[in-house]
Amino acid sequence: MSDAASRIDETRLWQRHVDMAKLGGLSKGGVNRQALSAEDAAARRLIGGWAQARGYDLFGDPIGNLYIRRAGTENDAAPVVTGSHMDSQPTGGKYDGIYGVLAGFEALEALDDAGIRTRRPVQVVAWMNEEGSRFQPGAMGSSVWSGHDDLGKMLAVADREGVVLRDALAKTLAEAPVRQVDGFDRNFHAYIEAHIEQGPRLEAGAKTIGVVTGIQGSQRYTLDIIGEEAHAGTTPLRVRKDALKSAVAIVAALERHMHDPADVVRFTVGRFECRPGSPNTVPGHVHFTIDFRHPDAAVLARLGSGIEAVAKAAVGPCSVTVERITDVAPTVFDPRIVDLVREKANALGLPNMDMPSGAGHDAMHVAPFCPSGMIFVPCERGISHNEAEAATPSDLAAGARVLVASLEALANE
Amino acid sequence: MSDAASRIDETRLWQRHVDMAKLGGLSKGGVNRQALSAEDAAARRLIGGWAQARGYDLFGDPIGNLYIRRAGTENDAAPVVTGSHMDSQPTGGKYDGIYGVLAGFEALEALDDAGIRTRRPVQVVAWMNEEGSRFQPGAMGSSVWSGHDDLGKMLAVADREGVVLRDALAKTLAEAPVRQVDGFDRNFHAYIEAHIEQGPRLEAGAKTIGVVTGIQGSQRYTLDIIGEEAHAGTTPLRVRKDALKSAVAIVAALERHMHDPADVVRFTVGRFECRPGSPNTVPGHVHFTIDFRHPDAAVLARLGSGIEAVAKAAVGPCSVTVERITDVAPTVFDPRIVDLVREKANALGLPNMDMPSGAGHDAMHVAPFCPSGMIFVPCERGISHNEAEAATPSDLAAGARVLVASLEALANE
Repeated sequence: MSDAASRIDETRLWQRHVDMAKLGGLSKGGVNRQALSAEDAAARRLIGGWAQARGYDLFGDPIGNLYIRRAGTENDAAPVVTGSHMDSQPTGGKYDGIYGVLAGFEALEALDDAGIRTRRPVQVVAWMNEEGSRFQPGAMGSSVWSGHDDLGKMLAVADREGVVLRDALAKTLAEAPVRQVDGFDRNFHAYIEAHIEQGPRLEAGAKTIGVVTGIQGSQRYTLDIIGEEAHAGTTPLRVRKDALKSAVAIVAALERHMHDPADVVRFTVGRFECRPGSPNTVPGHVHFTIDFRHPDAAVLARLGSGIEAVAKAAVGPCSVTVERITDVAPTVFDPRIVDLVREKANALGLPNMDMPSGAGHDAMHVAPFCPSGMIFVPCERGISHNEAEAATPSDLAAGARVLVASLEALANE
Repeated sequence: MSDAASRIDETRLWQRHVDMAKLGGLSKGGVNRQALSAEDAAARRLIGGWAQARGYDLFGDPIGNLYIRRAGTENDAAPVVTGSHMDSQPTGGKYDGIYGVLAGFEALEALDDAGIRTRRPVQVVAWMNEEGSRFQPGAMGSSVWSGHDDLGKMLAVADREGVVLRDALAKTLAEAPVRQVDGFDRNFHAYIEAHIEQGPRLEAGAKTIGVVTGIQGSQRYTLDIIGEEAHAGTTPLRVRKDALKSAVAIVAALERHMHDPADVVRFTVGRFECRPGSPNTVPGHVHFTIDFRHPDAAVLARLGSGIEAVAKAAVGPCSVTVERITDVAPTVFDPRIVDLVREKANALGLPNMDMPSGAGHDAMHVAPFCPSGMIFVPCERGISHNEAEAATPSDLAAGARVLVASLEALANE
């Protein structure tokens, strides 16, 4: 084991999760620590205190991203960066996001404890508002950092109570003050984000480490099937325009269209509304959504562009309109980072597998600017965005070992 | 043409529909004349005035059914009865129910105008609250008359505003007073109800008269499919318990189970609810209803009893529970009445077809007590329970001609 990896302290890392989970802790074991809340400010103070105790540089940018920098021997060199987010869903778990921040901080400490000096600074980032629960959209901090979303526009976003983000951020920074820098420094040498998998594949494959090859692309569609309301007792089936029957045929046809023996395609009909919803009236209107994801842009384009034709071919006597709501391209992580993470996992003797990320992460906004990658660790039964979210101390520590070994290598480039 | 049938006055019958449609008339051409409303009382006054002008006996029973009796030469003989209901849906049409009452009244007048005296009395009934919109259940007047529902219990039913039926009935009788009789005289010699078809079969078959052979039986089911909520981006399809996917497979399997080349089976999934209804969450619960009807009790029992097994075979990784909510046996009309109606239609040269009734009618409560039947006339595109409900003056008159010819024959038995 590398010196730094050997200094990853499983107990310390676990205890940091326990301490963080008290901030916004809920009765069923989860947390409610939404972006720029009092709980978020408390989390910023807590990690800020740990950073100051270690003598790390602590600073923030104009959208509320928080940075902790461990100096390098050439401190002006572009830093190697790791991190994730500290905000949670309203009834979120104890690991989603915060693990990536705490594993990054543990990496800094392990480098300290091993007495290792790196050429480049190693920097932890806690991206502001990844979940998008209180302020939409999600992944806001990394999106503004990247220039994908506009700073002024995002500062003007209001939550459901009418609180404007600019004011919520000012309040948070007043409660958890740090040195503020102007603008956004995108000059990262590399970026690696550690995260719980939020899916069941590592558990099912008995693997400890997911070597994340990219973030799959996603498309969202809405379909409206228009039929004709009719009396359920009197109207022969042959003359009906039954929107439910057509919708069922369309979903079944789309399942065939999306069928993938390799089980990589993610096809979900999550919202399905049938009107007027009277038991003795033939439905005249069905509205449903499609969430469709794939890591390969070509497959995404090919299968996605076939949806409308499949729906029209299966609609029978009704009519259907198909609208594409979102189309997010896949992120493909730099092979150098993917290979490095796999190599370090193998060197540490950790069972691992290459896998795409099913969910979106801040890394997708960083990847266009520097070689980037992610490390996944298992979470119980794949459950996330749920108070029942669970991970083991040893898996969390294993991920931190792969992380620090990878960061150390990159920081000496 | 028989003397009575030749005296059916198409213009008079149409004008009576026009006059009735003013009571509760709506902007799109329909009516809102719910049971025991001020509009219902006005309708009772209107037809009561016509009856008094003709010298017919006018009386009511304890649940608010209204009777108009044209005397026979043997006035104590059991009457031949016809009729339907005068109440409407909240946004109902101008023909549903009221046609059967007005066609019956037209039959009495045609007998008068032809100078015909019958051995038995011929009696029109306007059953109280067939629609069940304001007070539930529907077909209440005929149900209480038959003893199927209890008088005291029904008098205590309240509408949504808390008005008790007993009080609404007293108010109606105060506004439209008639002689009240105690109890319910079930000693009918025969019963024939005329009604618009509320379906498209007569129109499609270019027939003027539906010779109604019975009222199909109906069953109502609810199905609950339980799966497991999961992240749409991260959860492989192979490990999902997708309640929507299972529900779609079940509906498709039930459509095959219910497939009927003769198109007699009525199978409808009218309510279909999918939870939690988030586009990026795999659904964990689907609830849907089945409305299933067939005129043959054996087919109803056989196909109905197969629903649970079909659902369980198609449910895949989810679980399903099936509950039967209602099971109403088919009504088979007396062949003597069915034959008589067909014979009179043929004698009048009216294109006709035998058919079951898809919807329930008051006749189903009368049929156990005397030979009963129904006469259907076409309605445009089968549309009913809708302001757009439409029928032609000539079709309405044709039905009245078949009705009076049949009533005359029965009244001389």
